[in-house]
Amino acid sequence: MALIVQKFGGTSVAGIPQIQNAARRIAYECKRGHKVVAVVSAMAGMTDQLLNYIQATTPTPNPQEIDVVLASGEQVTCGLLALALQNFNISARSYLAWQIPLETDDTYTKARVKEIPTHAIEKTLNSNSVPIIAGFQGIGSEKRLTTFGRGGSDVTAVALAAVLKADRCDLYKDVSGIYTADPRIVEQARKLDQVGYKSMLELASLGSKVIQHRAVELAMGYKIPLRIFSSFEESIGTQIMDEEQMIERPLISGIVANKQEVRISLEIPLEPAKTMALLFDSLAEAHIGVDMIQHAKISDGHAFSLSFTINQSDLQTCVQILRDKNIITYSVDEKLTKISVVGVGLRSHSHLTSILFQTLATKNIELFGISTSEIRISVLIDQDFTELAVRTLHHAYGLDHNVSTPHLYAIA
Amino acid sequence: MALIVQKFGGTSVAGIPQIQNAARRIAYECKRGHKVVAVVSAMAGMTDQLLNYIQATTPTPNPQEIDVVLASGEQVTCGLLALALQNFNISARSYLAWQIPLETDDTYTKARVKEIPTHAIEKTLNSNSVPIIAGFQGIGSEKRLTTFGRGGSDVTAVALAAVLKADRCDLYKDVSGIYTADPRIVEQARKLDQVGYKSMLELASLGSKVIQHRAVELAMGYKIPLRIFSSFEESIGTQIMDEEQMIERPLISGIVANKQEVRISLEIPLEPAKTMALLFDSLAEAHIGVDMIQHAKISDGHAFSLSFTINQSDLQTCVQILRDKNIITYSVDEKLTKISVVGVGLRSHSHLTSILFQTLATKNIELFGISTSEIRISVLIDQDFTELAVRTLHHAYGLDHNVSTPHLYAIA
Repeated sequence: MALIVQKFGGTSVAGIPQIQNAARRIAYECKRGHKVVAVVSAMAGMTDQLLNYIQATTPTPNPQEIDVVLASGEQVTCGLLALALQNFNISARSYLAWQIPLETDDTYTKARVKEIPTHAIEKTLNSNSVPIIAGFQGIGSEKRLTTFGRGGSDVTAVALAAVLKADRCDLYKDVSGIYTADPRIVEQARKLDQVGYKSMLELASLGSKVIQHRAVELAMGYKIPLRIFSSFEESIGTQIMDEEQMIERPLISGIVANKQEVRISLEIPLEPAKTMALLFDSLAEAHIGVDMIQHAKISDGHAFSLSFTINQSDLQTCVQILRDKNIITYSVDEKLTKISVVGVGLRSHSHLTSILFQTLATKNIELFGISTSEIRISVLIDQDFTELAVRTLHHAYGLDHNVSTPHLYAIA
Repeated sequence: MALIVQKFGGTSVAGIPQIQNAARRIAYECKRGHKVVAVVSAMAGMTDQLLNYIQATTPTPNPQEIDVVLASGEQVTCGLLALALQNFNISARSYLAWQIPLETDDTYTKARVKEIPTHAIEKTLNSNSVPIIAGFQGIGSEKRLTTFGRGGSDVTAVALAAVLKADRCDLYKDVSGIYTADPRIVEQARKLDQVGYKSMLELASLGSKVIQHRAVELAMGYKIPLRIFSSFEESIGTQIMDEEQMIERPLISGIVANKQEVRISLEIPLEPAKTMALLFDSLAEAHIGVDMIQHAKISDGHAFSLSFTINQSDLQTCVQILRDKNIITYSVDEKLTKISVVGVGLRSHSHLTSILFQTLATKNIELFGISTSEIRISVLIDQDFTELAVRTLHHAYGLDHNVSTPHLYAIA
């Protein structure tokens, strides 16, 4: 008998038939003798609708009230899924964040989990009832509602799996797993049966929207086996696990494109290190992730040029920080895409890096920036070339499903 | 400087323009130096949408989960109204029931307020901020969400006015006040500038949907001056106050029709008093209001016939109670309307009662039941005659706005 955390994303609870389908999947595991804790997102589209309401109300919404409005979505599905299970004669009860209570820090709209007492949930499990937990929400100090940002229900599910020491965390989505590239761009994209935590972490951070990157971080930290399933088809999905334990270990896991990247360029007159440290400190404090930092002395020798990329959604906050630091001359470039190649093979197989540059060169795609980590290489290119670059690289790295490229795979 | 509780019903917060309009009304009172506590309903239509979801999920929903789903509606408007006020540079913060905490009993879907600590709200008021409270919801024991039933935000507003010792409680609705009859039925219906608590209580209990009857009960008990305003026009609305203090005291306040009434008829073989006591005890326990009880010995002398009316929404529960008591032969009549005449004059002016019977007789409208209280007379008639009866009685009692009927009004 296993303890399974099952999480149902927005499309998996988009309407009553989908909610009943989710209830069926929970019932299936219960009837096999497993214990299930369910986590739900808001009905697909509801969070967008609520965001539209907020934006129509005020151009500068207070993050604390944003979270009050947004957290209502999960409450609805939470109650409805409990009702759907009761309809299958399976006892269930809903839990909102404040009823657990799932405590977070006070970073409204992108809070981080601090503590999850398990008492209430375990009591419900022990009475053979299924706890249904509203995802995406927590409570900060002073008992105010917080939310975890887009895809935040993934975070709720993995955090619960960690504190409850669950055997497995299953994430039900509208895709059947993790692909080597976005199938809407690359027709030949292949679903991965397994992917390592680290590769998944890079894929998620770099723009793959299938799973929230903080959820992967948490799963990796607590070694929670994750599985991505489609709610609407029977398939084995993708298993996310320790790289070491993977049977089929691909050298390259996938190609990701992120159009949400924005580049800020500015000049720093004096003491570049000090100014940069202060600036990046402030950005970190505001929870703004920075990538692709480039700086160089300008030819006259009296100033430094600095550029870095951030996510588009953080642009307004970043501009405010620049102004607070009296940096009034800067340029913003929004017409860029970050293309990344991710795979554990990159750290040991240097020829894999050169494939990237060669491939882009053959298509005359100019590079505006490069950044690397142990298991990824990212380049910044003109947004117009996004699809061309992804498709060409996908083929060049031998990821197309009709291409036989044994040299890119290693059997453990 | 007064403390005012302002409550905005569903149509008053139906969309962003309406929410901004509500914020304007709060801002107006704030700028005149008053302190305001706002209470909000869910956006018009949202509660119905949520009820549809529930009914589509399961035919026998658990009341505890119904309340989880329904309480989400007020959360949205609560946050949005706070944002709208901030946009007018007025500080505001939202409160959900659990954050106060507004404690109720455990009667899910129609809970009653037990206790409202004022500490948090007063702290917000003292910092010159407007507390915006999610109406309709409370928390029961074990920290589970409860709701107050249709129009329950009225109850929240009046209960808050009571514990905060507010000077006034203003209810913003989609009507401009209390009318002598439903203006959709009686074109000549007049708006009352003032109405006594007791008359209002009867009007509300008998089917006038303008204000929740339990809110009136509470206001009467704590002597909270209530005002009904339209959100969408400037008018003095209707003031609900102590009968004694009214300047213009009408003998008859209005005519109300309730089509939601259902009559249950059954036969009781033996010991009628004991059986009836047990039956009505069970109905009371299930919070089912019973009206128009009639019973009589059946001609053969071995049985009693009993009939009573209840609200349609309680029919299913009532039928279950009858079955639990092994009463399997009963008939249900759903094609009836209860027509009521309400007014403080009825207790002292007996000729007012006879107008009712004479008027219905001239139209050949048959009576299936009669019940009276100090300040109302109700009759049960065939549903087909509802509009005819209301219009004819409205005229007969001299309530039409183009009819001069000084004998029906007494100047205090």
